[in-house]
Amino acid sequence: MAGSVGHVETQRVVLFTEDDPFVLESGARLSHVEAAYETYGQLNAEGSNTVFVCHALTGDAHAAGHHGDPERPGWWDTLIGPGKPVDTDQFFVVCPNLLGGCKGTTGPSSTDPATGQPYGLRFPHFTVADLVSVHRRLLAHLGIERVHGAIGGSLGGMQVLQWAMDHPGEVEYGILVCASARLTAQNVALSAVARSSITGDENFAGGDYYDTDLTPDIGLSVARMLAHITYVSEESLDRKFGRSRRSEQPTFEIDFEVESYLDHQGRIFLERFDANTYLYLTRVMDYFDPFADEAAATAQLAASGTDFLVVSFDTDWRFPTSHSAEIARVIGLSGRPLVAEEVVSPWGHDSFLLTVPRYHELVAAFLSGS
Amino acid sequence: MAGSVGHVETQRVVLFTEDDPFVLESGARLSHVEAAYETYGQLNAEGSNTVFVCHALTGDAHAAGHHGDPERPGWWDTLIGPGKPVDTDQFFVVCPNLLGGCKGTTGPSSTDPATGQPYGLRFPHFTVADLVSVHRRLLAHLGIERVHGAIGGSLGGMQVLQWAMDHPGEVEYGILVCASARLTAQNVALSAVARSSITGDENFAGGDYYDTDLTPDIGLSVARMLAHITYVSEESLDRKFGRSRRSEQPTFEIDFEVESYLDHQGRIFLERFDANTYLYLTRVMDYFDPFADEAAATAQLAASGTDFLVVSFDTDWRFPTSHSAEIARVIGLSGRPLVAEEVVSPWGHDSFLLTVPRYHELVAAFLSGS
Repeated sequence: MAGSVGHVETQRVVLFTEDDPFVLESGARLSHVEAAYETYGQLNAEGSNTVFVCHALTGDAHAAGHHGDPERPGWWDTLIGPGKPVDTDQFFVVCPNLLGGCKGTTGPSSTDPATGQPYGLRFPHFTVADLVSVHRRLLAHLGIERVHGAIGGSLGGMQVLQWAMDHPGEVEYGILVCASARLTAQNVALSAVARSSITGDENFAGGDYYDTDLTPDIGLSVARMLAHITYVSEESLDRKFGRSRRSEQPTFEIDFEVESYLDHQGRIFLERFDANTYLYLTRVMDYFDPFADEAAATAQLAASGTDFLVVSFDTDWRFPTSHSAEIARVIGLSGRPLVAEEVVSPWGHDSFLLTVPRYHELVAAFLSGS
Repeated sequence: MAGSVGHVETQRVVLFTEDDPFVLESGARLSHVEAAYETYGQLNAEGSNTVFVCHALTGDAHAAGHHGDPERPGWWDTLIGPGKPVDTDQFFVVCPNLLGGCKGTTGPSSTDPATGQPYGLRFPHFTVADLVSVHRRLLAHLGIERVHGAIGGSLGGMQVLQWAMDHPGEVEYGILVCASARLTAQNVALSAVARSSITGDENFAGGDYYDTDLTPDIGLSVARMLAHITYVSEESLDRKFGRSRRSEQPTFEIDFEVESYLDHQGRIFLERFDANTYLYLTRVMDYFDPFADEAAATAQLAASGTDFLVVSFDTDWRFPTSHSAEIARVIGLSGRPLVAEEVVSPWGHDSFLLTVPRYHELVAAFLSGS
């Protein structure tokens, strides 16, 4: 019977300092980087049972268990726990908040040591490779040199792919769920609208809104509402809401149930997310293009030592199966072991967060090496 | 050889007055309604050759010809003109701006005679049936009792459908291009985000921005950018822009060509559109549901005397073929003559504005009665 890892706490660690700064792929430097992370399960004596969890755009370190209220579990509690596909009875699971994040890891809302003020948009731009560099430093801190598995959905899967390509021998099993190796013009366009909404908010103030009472809430909530539509399938919205209404007569308030739902999604997002982090992480995704030089990418993958599981969902229209198929195609060229499957699920892109039995079966079997 | 109707001018007419007010479907009254409209071609002696053009969400009366610069033709000049599918050598074509519009027909930016101030959000909500009522009054003014054809794309097609259902014997040939008889939850959600962006703009001022120097430009441009993405296919964005960049390094300005294009679309829209009209017309579409009582709708259609052409485009994801198929299904139940076809076109919803040969063939053949 699958269970919960129970009560957990987020931990923090300083990973880079002025004497040992983090040098980004761009050459920019960060003289203080700390990371928030959680762990579940126990590291075995050989240090060989780590599964590293890479979160997506709006995730954080709190992937499993709860912080006091069992009714409010972490964002991937469906997948991670005793007896679950990422089985904490077998694996030592590590999940950090990403570089550039807003839930404990250094990002644009952190204090710039050079000025004593929040970075805002003076935080350097970074890449998926930089996210991986911080992950690896965290593992070094924990005394871990390689991982049994690395898993991520969407932006999380991008990190797994980059990691395997750049650091041969470090990731034994790489799991990419509804990820992409290259955003389309439509993907970039959707994120551009979200960014325009945020930067156009009267309270955005060029990103320097931290020391004010005003934050770009409307811009960020509109961005979230738009993104949320792309995370769910047309079918799932129709199943849940159809054309149900709360209003008899037309108004410019909330007339349809689907509007109430979206409005709620926008509002609750404000409590947990920072607008500048949204800007940075969407830009990271726009620029991600690890197969730009396909021959080089194929060679990197061939040398990775990684076995890959690439899962997509048939109703995902944010990163449809065509994206996963392209990842699988290039992995195929490399000759690395690969399981690629489109899973039937009504829930669109968000399926990676939900209990979709076939998807969970695939993850469990793959991590167990079968 | 297909040509242009040449230089045209928009005309205006007062259709309803205090003594003869417009009573909306809701029971609300408008004591002054004027309409902007254009006509092309000549009404024949029998008054039997009118083709009425119903515009979509952001259209206006200027469908064909030009206002002085032949390089800047009307929005449906591809379709309307001498030798074109809506052939002005044969037909007398009438195209008005919609009730609630912002290009010459009474709408929220018009002066409320009761207050001497612009209506803003005090303008009454209205329905597709109300749009049709104003069209019919315009025709009465022109001495026309019935039309040879009525044609519209998207919201335009909704008007054609409502007209045929409500007023038997008035529309001989009804052409619905990429229309819908019932928005899905996703359709409503996308419009809800657009409205949230507009009403959340610091300059929106509850809709009373007309007498200020400030207009909700950011909110309206974000709404337009989002909508524009849904009007074009993923394929067409990739063909046009792919991942071409204007910037070497990531910024939060315009790095990708597709961002530049979208930004341009948002900006030019501000020059020609009013935010309150956007709110009203999207709400009209949300509520449109003429088949809610299918038996009644079938009976209305059976009595309409209208032959129907229902065209959709295979890459349209705003109102996909499933919407047109539902319209065709109910028309089929009514027994009315029907041609329904999904046309192959790479350009998505916007295909209805473009020269897609098969679509133009269908319109030309249908209007000629063959």
